[in-house]
Amino acid sequence: MKELLGGKGANLAEMMNLGLPVPPGFTITTDVCNFFSDALVRNGRGDYPAGYTEQLEEKLQELEQKMGKKLGDSENPLLVSVRSGASISMPGMMDTILNLGLNDVTVLAVIAKTGNERFAYDAYRRFVNMFGDVVLGVAHEHFEKKMDLMKAAKGVSADTELDAGDLRELVSMYKEVVRTHAGVAFPENPRDQLKMAIEAVFGSWMSERAVLYRRIHHVPSGVRGTAVNIQSMVFGNMGETSGTGVAFTRNPSTGAAEFYGEFLMNAQGEDVVAGIRTPQSIEELGQVMPEVYAQLLQAKDALERHYRDMQDIEFTIENGRLFMLQTRNGKRTAHAAVKIAVDLVGEGLLTREEALLNIDANALNQLLHPRIDTGASRNVVTRGLPASPGAACGRIVFSPEDAVEWVSRGEKVILVRRETTPEDLGGMHVAEGILTAMGGMTSHAAVVCRGMGKPCIAGCSSISVDKRLKICAIGDLLLREGDVITLDGSTGEVMLGDMPMIKPEISGDFLEVMKWTDDFRAMKVRANADTPHDSAVAREFGAEGIGLCRTEHMFFDEARIDTVREMILARDLPTRVAALARLLPFQREDFYGIFKAMNGYPVCIRLLDPPLHEFMPQTDGKIAELAVRMGMPFEQLKLVTESLHEVNPMLGHRGCRLAVTFPEMYEMQVQAIIEAAVLARKEGIVVIPEIEMPLISSTNELKMLRELALRVITTFESEHGPLDFAYKIGSMIELPRACLTADYLAQYADFFSFGTNDLTQTTWGISRDDVGKFMGDYLEKGVLERDPSETIDRRGVGELMRIGVEKARSVKPDIEIGICGEHGGEPASVEFCHQIGLDYVSCSPFRVPIARLAAAQAAIRGGRIARVHAGLVPVTPHIPSAVSG
Amino acid sequence: MKELLGGKGANLAEMMNLGLPVPPGFTITTDVCNFFSDALVRNGRGDYPAGYTEQLEEKLQELEQKMGKKLGDSENPLLVSVRSGASISMPGMMDTILNLGLNDVTVLAVIAKTGNERFAYDAYRRFVNMFGDVVLGVAHEHFEKKMDLMKAAKGVSADTELDAGDLRELVSMYKEVVRTHAGVAFPENPRDQLKMAIEAVFGSWMSERAVLYRRIHHVPSGVRGTAVNIQSMVFGNMGETSGTGVAFTRNPSTGAAEFYGEFLMNAQGEDVVAGIRTPQSIEELGQVMPEVYAQLLQAKDALERHYRDMQDIEFTIENGRLFMLQTRNGKRTAHAAVKIAVDLVGEGLLTREEALLNIDANALNQLLHPRIDTGASRNVVTRGLPASPGAACGRIVFSPEDAVEWVSRGEKVILVRRETTPEDLGGMHVAEGILTAMGGMTSHAAVVCRGMGKPCIAGCSSISVDKRLKICAIGDLLLREGDVITLDGSTGEVMLGDMPMIKPEISGDFLEVMKWTDDFRAMKVRANADTPHDSAVAREFGAEGIGLCRTEHMFFDEARIDTVREMILARDLPTRVAALARLLPFQREDFYGIFKAMNGYPVCIRLLDPPLHEFMPQTDGKIAELAVRMGMPFEQLKLVTESLHEVNPMLGHRGCRLAVTFPEMYEMQVQAIIEAAVLARKEGIVVIPEIEMPLISSTNELKMLRELALRVITTFESEHGPLDFAYKIGSMIELPRACLTADYLAQYADFFSFGTNDLTQTTWGISRDDVGKFMGDYLEKGVLERDPSETIDRRGVGELMRIGVEKARSVKPDIEIGICGEHGGEPASVEFCHQIGLDYVSCSPFRVPIARLAAAQAAIRGGRIARVHAGLVPVTPHIPSAVSG
Repeated sequence: MKELLGGKGANLAEMMNLGLPVPPGFTITTDVCNFFSDALVRNGRGDYPAGYTEQLEEKLQELEQKMGKKLGDSENPLLVSVRSGASISMPGMMDTILNLGLNDVTVLAVIAKTGNERFAYDAYRRFVNMFGDVVLGVAHEHFEKKMDLMKAAKGVSADTELDAGDLRELVSMYKEVVRTHAGVAFPENPRDQLKMAIEAVFGSWMSERAVLYRRIHHVPSGVRGTAVNIQSMVFGNMGETSGTGVAFTRNPSTGAAEFYGEFLMNAQGEDVVAGIRTPQSIEELGQVMPEVYAQLLQAKDALERHYRDMQDIEFTIENGRLFMLQTRNGKRTAHAAVKIAVDLVGEGLLTREEALLNIDANALNQLLHPRIDTGASRNVVTRGLPASPGAACGRIVFSPEDAVEWVSRGEKVILVRRETTPEDLGGMHVAEGILTAMGGMTSHAAVVCRGMGKPCIAGCSSISVDKRLKICAIGDLLLREGDVITLDGSTGEVMLGDMPMIKPEISGDFLEVMKWTDDFRAMKVRANADTPHDSAVAREFGAEGIGLCRTEHMFFDEARIDTVREMILARDLPTRVAALARLLPFQREDFYGIFKAMNGYPVCIRLLDPPLHEFMPQTDGKIAELAVRMGMPFEQLKLVTESLHEVNPMLGHRGCRLAVTFPEMYEMQVQAIIEAAVLARKEGIVVIPEIEMPLISSTNELKMLRELALRVITTFESEHGPLDFAYKIGSMIELPRACLTADYLAQYADFFSFGTNDLTQTTWGISRDDVGKFMGDYLEKGVLERDPSETIDRRGVGELMRIGVEKARSVKPDIEIGICGEHGGEPASVEFCHQIGLDYVSCSPFRVPIARLAAAQAAIRGGRIARVHAGLVPVTPHIPSAVSG
Repeated sequence: MKELLGGKGANLAEMMNLGLPVPPGFTITTDVCNFFSDALVRNGRGDYPAGYTEQLEEKLQELEQKMGKKLGDSENPLLVSVRSGASISMPGMMDTILNLGLNDVTVLAVIAKTGNERFAYDAYRRFVNMFGDVVLGVAHEHFEKKMDLMKAAKGVSADTELDAGDLRELVSMYKEVVRTHAGVAFPENPRDQLKMAIEAVFGSWMSERAVLYRRIHHVPSGVRGTAVNIQSMVFGNMGETSGTGVAFTRNPSTGAAEFYGEFLMNAQGEDVVAGIRTPQSIEELGQVMPEVYAQLLQAKDALERHYRDMQDIEFTIENGRLFMLQTRNGKRTAHAAVKIAVDLVGEGLLTREEALLNIDANALNQLLHPRIDTGASRNVVTRGLPASPGAACGRIVFSPEDAVEWVSRGEKVILVRRETTPEDLGGMHVAEGILTAMGGMTSHAAVVCRGMGKPCIAGCSSISVDKRLKICAIGDLLLREGDVITLDGSTGEVMLGDMPMIKPEISGDFLEVMKWTDDFRAMKVRANADTPHDSAVAREFGAEGIGLCRTEHMFFDEARIDTVREMILARDLPTRVAALARLLPFQREDFYGIFKAMNGYPVCIRLLDPPLHEFMPQTDGKIAELAVRMGMPFEQLKLVTESLHEVNPMLGHRGCRLAVTFPEMYEMQVQAIIEAAVLARKEGIVVIPEIEMPLISSTNELKMLRELALRVITTFESEHGPLDFAYKIGSMIELPRACLTADYLAQYADFFSFGTNDLTQTTWGISRDDVGKFMGDYLEKGVLERDPSETIDRRGVGELMRIGVEKARSVKPDIEIGICGEHGGEPASVEFCHQIGLDYVSCSPFRVPIARLAAAQAAIRGGRIARVHAGLVPVTPHIPSAVSG
């Protein structure tokens, strides 16, 4: 029904079926709109399907009969509303015309029938205004100007102070406005009015703002046009026994089961929204009109029972008689969504499955991060990409060192950088939030911040940063170190000054909902975490293991980085091996801590991935400092550092390529993993290590590195006896070639994990660090609907993943396959992962609840039988003997 | 037969069938070797199939009967040779043992039978030496030492001066060597000798050098092992009526139809090769032994007739009796290959198809580029990647400016750079050859040099270049500006000093062969060329159009580059449009020249592709100069230049992304193309412009840019009347996503062209500019068999191409699809392109003949019916009206 009648039309029809009082009317279907739009595009002129005109006339006559009124009748004129209603909700996007049918003749009849001349002329002037605006394209301000002139002439300040005569005069003035600005006379014939209004509604479907709204909200372009609802008018402004109101059947902010809304007596619907008069709270209607209120409460209950969801309703009272004008599922906060879901299940209105589907997984971010008080007014100075959700405010600093220093003085800081690098980690750690001029949704800043659960705005290209002068400019606005700004990482907005914040709180209802998700999910949800602390946070959010532990993040610690550099600068194997030996205890300690935090759950550890230059100092000053510490001439160190430079480091000497050149690096890491696991086992901890090779592009790489790892383990076992735990060896799948050859790779892998960040970059040929320069244009010009780093591009990247899964399972049906790219916590991507049969998704700890819900929703929607029943059967790693076979 | 018997065994069998005198013997099949090797890998011990031992014994007895001799017999002993022979030719790689069967007993019988004690002991000591070396792994030098001692003791300098007694004593000493170094006694039992020799041959199949040889020559790992040929010995060293020789049935250097070879009387085969005595020319055999020579000439003719190819034969004369030991297809120069092919067709021995298949397409490079005289001794100081073929020598310069200056003084120069950038083009143009320390087979230097037909060695990582001091170091060797070096771009060798060169010459035979290729090719062959001059060269080589005209190369001309920079620096649209307007005449002129050179053939013009920073000066000095010319403060220009910097420019703001941001750039280029075509049409030139969008990743990009181009053309037509020629609009397919969505893209494309350079980089995640750091390790350690930038990686990149072709043709069966990546001129890649049904390949002008031959060979081998019969039906572009539909 909704497809054909639109949301509003379908709802009206359903309300009638429920026996609720609805003003009589009929609906012109979306089919007609499509026909009209197609003709418009094809011939430059809208057209109607055969028989339409006759059918419209017939329906109109039926309505006239039902109401005992006639359109344009000089004694008993029918007035109608003409509203759009698409199959998807597009609030405020489509146009509405009220009081259609009024003209100089019928207005007199209305006066005669109601005895309310002021009401009649008020309705008339509103109609001319709306019709002029919506149908004839005359800007509202031209009408406003006349209204202002009239009020000034009369020496009054409110519309309501104008009398019937003033309003009648306004009608004439408004018609003059129409003639001047539209170049045509206001149509006095109500049938012309109706035809023009219907065409305007159809036209509004393709209007710029409607197209923009659909693009912003990712409405697929195949969605059918709008329906047109024609209803006889009812009037809330016919005197003190008339009124109008809007209400939610539950509190949309808290979710509490209380009737929530407001009304105005002697008013039309727009007055409530316009805020000219202050409306009364809905329960006061109980005192004003007890019978109507009782009837409204009944309608409320009937609607909630029928739609089995919280409703957002509009009603009008005409001369003491209640009319329901509209109902739809109400928008709500995440907090309310969770409470309503739990309550509706408790009330037996919904199954848990249905309740879960009603919660917007993305909205859970609101519950997990601080956000700006919705009441506060926002002094937005610029906008960037919403790279990591949550809000934060603090004083601007421009370097990680300054960040640390300001924080040590007790200040909160926002770190503002052109882009961040691993060298900034210390500063990022202490900052409240990060703002960068460059980089996209998967830039270093974005990824690290999401991991830390810290707000980040990236790719804010309107900012230019001068870190030497410690200033940044946004257009003409100059900000200095110490200036206070607020970031909204969920919207990308940068604001001046300190904004009031709402702290996140996790309710019992939230925990309940999270528990439900575990009963339906087919996929496990793991976290990307690099430290024992992050692992513990991840466990609290319900992570069932680590899907990606980036070992290089451990290398940047101040106590270690110089040893890492010694290893890089080593000119021969013994020097390099010696430096690696000094790093081993650090890595072992980290891994031990993570195994402990993840007791009983798998921990997937990716061996060293980034190009080595990332570990070297970048500025001459820091190179000089290091040269002193290393006892090396500055010039020589500078030369070595420069020789590590790469034209395209993302496609350079990194990932497993490092280990093909320097096998000893991975040997040390495997050794550290095994020693850490043995240490943990001695304390009774259940360890499930997964050793992961990054950036695999060819079978021989994986074969060689698998053999390397097995050699280290075998040597360990020959010295210390056999391991008493199982482990896996596998690889990232993050290059197109790895997907295309997954059947070959699978022979040497116990598991695969899709690295969709790099896979997206290579599939599209887009660097996440440079995308800021053009992604804005792409989204703005509609070349792309969404940034592929934000959600999995199913046609390209997703197709490669599908091929990869299919090929891998064709030779090894039980191979464990997950995803650890940033997409692993994005609901639409999680759904896709479910559809192609992944075993788990892994995401930053703060997105784990979102992923759990999204995975459950995908399973409920898709009905895929769980490969591994969530929470019941632990993932069983292959035993070592099978692994080495 | 060859598969089972190996090359040598099969040839022996065939020679016997031809009635030629072959020493009797039998062959152990490759099956046995495989069985043996498998067992060796599985159990650490070789093993034989059931029945093998019995069969061997049976065959041996047959041989003994045939020869009237017995292995180990004290009166009439059989001596045999044991030789390996795989199904593929691996000259010098596998091992041979001669004179097997000799021991202290049988040697006496040989003496008794031949009356030649010296011969017998010489054979015996050779056998102990060979057996010790090949079967027991005792280094040859240990035997040599004893030989030297003996010669010293006797006061002689040549082996031949030792007498029978000396040699008998050497046998004892050699046996002692075996005992000492192998730890076992020399086996006296001939049956043990035989068994051990066979196993050694099998073992040699998996020896390091054999495995390496197969890797270097890209022998697929599935090729079966080696056969073992056991033949009764014949002796060329039994006195003055014995002898041995090797010969080619035609001159392998020139291809002339003359018997070509040499022989030695009273010698064994190895003596001819070893060069201890100077052999005589083969025709002299006619005087020495006229009858044998006549028999040999008959054998030669029989063999050539049988194999229908030039043969490389070995023979031995034992006591006046001729034995043919071996025949195989002879190696030859490209020059000879072409002449022999034409001659054999002329003689009716081969069809043209067969003759074409006999020519190694890659070897044609020898005919098209200068090469170093094969006689010259090479003072190789280092080695890099053979990035562009041919040889050149000249004085070293380190900057393009210096190159120009030295050349203006009449010097020839070699430009040595860390890597080249488009800024170096001027210098590259005047240099004889280019040597770079960084970069791979598709680096800037490599691509440009191949286009210019100039030798280039890239990624020569042992060189460090200091361009300020104008020196470069190779290990301890320091080279300064002005020093003379020679580059061999076909091998990657860098040599000191001036080497003698052989100039290329194109013979009538070559032209004949090229004409044949056109009759069999299913694919067209186009050239990548950016200038009228290169286009003319391409036409001379037979190019049938331009497959890739890189418009940006035109931007670097000195007269234009500042205007290009003005365009880049423009801060508003009018300034940018004005700069573009000044560039338009230049582009129009270039395109006009290319259309003229390609009269009647399609010209595919790629719109601007590289990131804009490539057009900006890189050093502070040059930025300062430009700032003066632009009247801009240095600091400001420096800031703008830095803001153009990208982390991964290859994946950054380039290709069609430039036009999404700055549509006016492509608008100018389309305008220039159309104006140039109109200009050329006015002179009666037949123009077929193809307008190509680079780096397309999404459908909307192509849709938008196609509309842009059509808009420019429509505007032109509305002003100047309709075009009187057809054109096409299409796109590069150079990103994995473009392949995966080719069915969507095809809706907006008249043609596709695979850009396999970028496609390889993104599919593998490897930057061609940075690959030098690790590709060496990859090839050396056998992780990769070949650099994927050299030949199409069929499993990864090729699979994406296959998917792309399939998807594109699924919606538009007639869409024209080609390839313009560097692979388009590499024979194996050309074959693959044929197999997946491309319409054309495009490569640098100097590779056009190679591509033509490779395309013909692929068609002959594959039997694919030509989609477009080469040279007969011109490619018909869609007419404009169909294009815009």
